[in-house]
Amino acid sequence: MQISELARRAGVPVATVKYYLREGLLPPGELTGATRARYGEEHLSRLGLVRALLGPGGLSVATARAVLDAVDTPATSVHQALGAAHRALPGVGPDAPADLDQARALLRRQGWQVAEDSPALRALAGALEALRAAGSPPSEELLDRYAEAAGRIGEQDVAAVPTGSLADAVRFVVVNTVLLEPVLLALRRLAQEDASRRRFPGDR
Amino acid sequence: MQISELARRAGVPVATVKYYLREGLLPPGELTGATRARYGEEHLSRLGLVRALLGPGGLSVATARAVLDAVDTPATSVHQALGAAHRALPGVGPDAPADLDQARALLRRQGWQVAEDSPALRALAGALEALRAAGSPPSEELLDRYAEAAGRIGEQDVAAVPTGSLADAVRFVVVNTVLLEPVLLALRRLAQEDASRRRFPGDR
Repeated sequence: MQISELARRAGVPVATVKYYLREGLLPPGELTGATRARYGEEHLSRLGLVRALLGPGGLSVATARAVLDAVDTPATSVHQALGAAHRALPGVGPDAPADLDQARALLRRQGWQVAEDSPALRALAGALEALRAAGSPPSEELLDRYAEAAGRIGEQDVAAVPTGSLADAVRFVVVNTVLLEPVLLALRRLAQEDASRRRFPGDR
Repeated sequence: MQISELARRAGVPVATVKYYLREGLLPPGELTGATRARYGEEHLSRLGLVRALLGPGGLSVATARAVLDAVDTPATSVHQALGAAHRALPGVGPDAPADLDQARALLRRQGWQVAEDSPALRALAGALEALRAAGSPPSEELLDRYAEAAGRIGEQDVAAVPTGSLADAVRFVVVNTVLLEPVLLALRRLAQEDASRRRFPGDR
């Protein structure tokens, strides 16, 4: 299809498609003339991914490009590909040099093994440090319950990874890591609202 | 204590304390002269909260001010105070006009009752729309499992709210809503990493 049809089917202006092409977020089409190119279904699908990452995903163009590079790089293994995708994604919290002891102790209690340089480990340590600085140091029990809930989710996320092709696996991980995070946070707030309504019944 | 001691004990420069005072993030001290004021332990504690919100919490000065206003406004009930705090906090996802049907169906399946205008409900609907746009519409089963995990966490969050004073309750909700979100997201990524290592064992 031509760029005008691609734009129409994706529901974006042609100028947006051209912008993504210039920024390297969308691979070029197949040249069919000096100024014409042909685009395929894979371009339409990629357009959906780019818009999801830039819009609701909240990624910058530079970060989206890094994430898409991870999606496009032929990985040698699924586990390696997941690591590359995680590293390309923006962090979930502060990434300051922090005391990793409490975070490591939590992982040990859960029996989780992760890379020493895992960005999420530093993010966890930074978030715990922030809670202490704010005068609300979390108890071991609270952290264990959070970890158990996160563990169930992580287990399910990984069980759902399609193993047919590495490219599909990486795309799935990227989309689900970025776009299910707001789902999880929104659900936590809704659960808090419902629990608060039930706990303080006379109190609306 | 004088401003210099307050700054020293909080571990920030005096200029930072003065900036927070100017921005209304820190209440003024008790005037003891034309240019001198005395500060108490409540200022030290507030400084910790402000730094946590602006730093790891990632709030802008304007949002932090709105959140602190919610903390400071005498609420008439705990449930109302929680709602005010949630509303003042930055959203967790896109807040576009979205189709709320799938989000509402999910809440019905979980038996959760929330306000029609709950920002988290719109955020959930926006995040679900984004997943569909990205070509990864989440299954009902996946959403239910996420909701169950989020439900356990929300239940525990609310059970931990101190009920002695409304001010303490609101402060607790604000700190825990903002600062436990990165903890939850970091734990999910770590759980994914551990699950991926176990699922793809030969594959590192």
